Amino acid sequence: MSAQTVPVTLGDLQSGIRPRLDGVVAELRRIVETDFGLISEVNQHLFQMQGKLMRPTLLLLADEATGGPDTRAMRLAAVVELIHLATLVHDDSVDHSVLRRGMPTINSLFSHQVSVIMGDYLYSRAVIELVDIGDLAPLKVLSRVTNEMTVGEMRQLLAHDPLRFSEEDYDLLIRAKTASLLSGACETGALSGTPEQREALRRFGEHLGMAFQIVDDLLDYTEDEAVTGKPSGLDLREHKVTLPLIHALPKMTDAERRVVNELMRAPHPSDVQIADVVASVDRAGGLAYARDRAAQLAASAEQQLETLPPSAAREALRSAISYVLERRR
Amino acid sequence: MSAQTVPVTLGDLQSGIRPRLDGVVAELRRIVETDFGLISEVNQHLFQMQGKLMRPTLLLLADEATGGPDTRAMRLAAVVELIHLATLVHDDSVDHSVLRRGMPTINSLFSHQVSVIMGDYLYSRAVIELVDIGDLAPLKVLSRVTNEMTVGEMRQLLAHDPLRFSEEDYDLLIRAKTASLLSGACETGALSGTPEQREALRRFGEHLGMAFQIVDDLLDYTEDEAVTGKPSGLDLREHKVTLPLIHALPKMTDAERRVVNELMRAPHPSDVQIADVVASVDRAGGLAYARDRAAQLAASAEQQLETLPPSAAREALRSAISYVLERRR
Repeated sequence: MSAQTVPVTLGDLQSGIRPRLDGVVAELRRIVETDFGLISEVNQHLFQMQGKLMRPTLLLLADEATGGPDTRAMRLAAVVELIHLATLVHDDSVDHSVLRRGMPTINSLFSHQVSVIMGDYLYSRAVIELVDIGDLAPLKVLSRVTNEMTVGEMRQLLAHDPLRFSEEDYDLLIRAKTASLLSGACETGALSGTPEQREALRRFGEHLGMAFQIVDDLLDYTEDEAVTGKPSGLDLREHKVTLPLIHALPKMTDAERRVVNELMRAPHPSDVQIADVVASVDRAGGLAYARDRAAQLAASAEQQLETLPPSAAREALRSAISYVLERRR
Repeated sequence: MSAQTVPVTLGDLQSGIRPRLDGVVAELRRIVETDFGLISEVNQHLFQMQGKLMRPTLLLLADEATGGPDTRAMRLAAVVELIHLATLVHDDSVDHSVLRRGMPTINSLFSHQVSVIMGDYLYSRAVIELVDIGDLAPLKVLSRVTNEMTVGEMRQLLAHDPLRFSEEDYDLLIRAKTASLLSGACETGALSGTPEQREALRRFGEHLGMAFQIVDDLLDYTEDEAVTGKPSGLDLREHKVTLPLIHALPKMTDAERRVVNELMRAPHPSDVQIADVVASVDRAGGLAYARDRAAQLAASAEQQLETLPPSAAREALRSAISYVLERRR
């Protein structure tokens, strides 16, 4: 990967597809539209907290890098973002999260009930739209991916015991929870390419997605709330075991491991406890190891791009790798 | 409808399709199978609480009444039951229900988290199976129906104020919440029939489903826990407004209406409050009116069957109407 002096932003990647991304947002609004008051209110709130459209961006770039633009790509990109939204709404409900992207979550603003039903509403709308597109191929990719994400969420529930949660478990978790939809977005974008291109973009998305989640988990250790918008050390506070801790634990002293165990048993860990564990994970090489793993996965994602013919979209996908590695929030 | 001296049981309707229903259960097990421990545990529990297979029964009878048996019908029937299961798991989570079919619910036995994720798992598996069948027609019917059910669930959240919840609202609620999947099961079974047969069975299922829900809501007023397996007056206890109360309210005395309002404001209504409201709903004709509405809908369901050629399956569908009207649990 070329050395970057100025960090790549998502805006850089999106500059070539800005009008199509606006089209994706318009499609998204059309798909979820309803005259039922309560759902319409929740929709409005969801649009206010609109994210960075990373998955639609990858889908549109994959489309353009494999012979597109295909006219269906904007609808498909809207569906992928809708599936992402549906899983966020359920995740926040499952985690009892209060904030998402700096705004109140559906479960906190409305209720737990509304968020469970709303997730189901959004997902079933996504399926209706896919059926209306009239092609089984994207349905096949995206239904498999959605199911994988639910298995990932189940794995997440078990990721609270550092002595029993291995690096292999962690890889399975992040592949299912995060990488599957990024991979599905890339694969869906490449459906009109050759089978080799489709497989290359599926793998590209998978490795990029795993790197994305590792970086996310690292940021929880390294960045302040002022930068990321969510409290630092939140995963440890919620007893979520991620790669830095998994790698560091066997290398820690007995005294350090005792501090980890105390934190994991504390219903409300203190800031001092969290800072202590962060420091010992760093000393034991956990942060450096996770950074290396993310870089390896990024390199293997970049390799997949060699299968594609040269194009501006291919180079934007290459920049997406830098964006994922360098982002601080 | 012919006068019945012995009540029709679901077993009577199912006698002609018993081997195919066994096949549906086998398909269901195959579809949800997983090697992931936690999901497999939840699956086992779900199979222990297996229901009466009413929706698969209707689908298979609709299939046979319109030129079947179609080889795909058992897989489709399993998918319909799976969608039903997914909605039950989410409904119990939304309602914080503790018991279902006399057994602990997933949310009470595992957790709220597990039940939200498990509902998503089951529904996404259903979509995968539909995609694998390779025909967009059942996907179109069942994705629309699933979305309607989520709107029904949202409507249910608003059905707690008897002064603002009208009979029209109630009809929209039961059509979306209950009738849509029964109707979808019948329509899916009739997909290889003529367009007229398909439409007749869609309507048959819709009217049958509305009658089914009205009878369900009546049983909550009239039957003991010993008969139904759930506490009598549960809807009132949970402040759910159903047809008997909607109809009775304008006909009640001011004193009776005051008792209703007190019950609706009481966080934990007493048995005496519930018995008082049940008695005044009955006096004001609410129970009789709901029985009449169910009978009207049943008659209009029966009319739809005239579109079908004579067959044993058609007569079993006719018996399904008697079963729905006469059931006491």
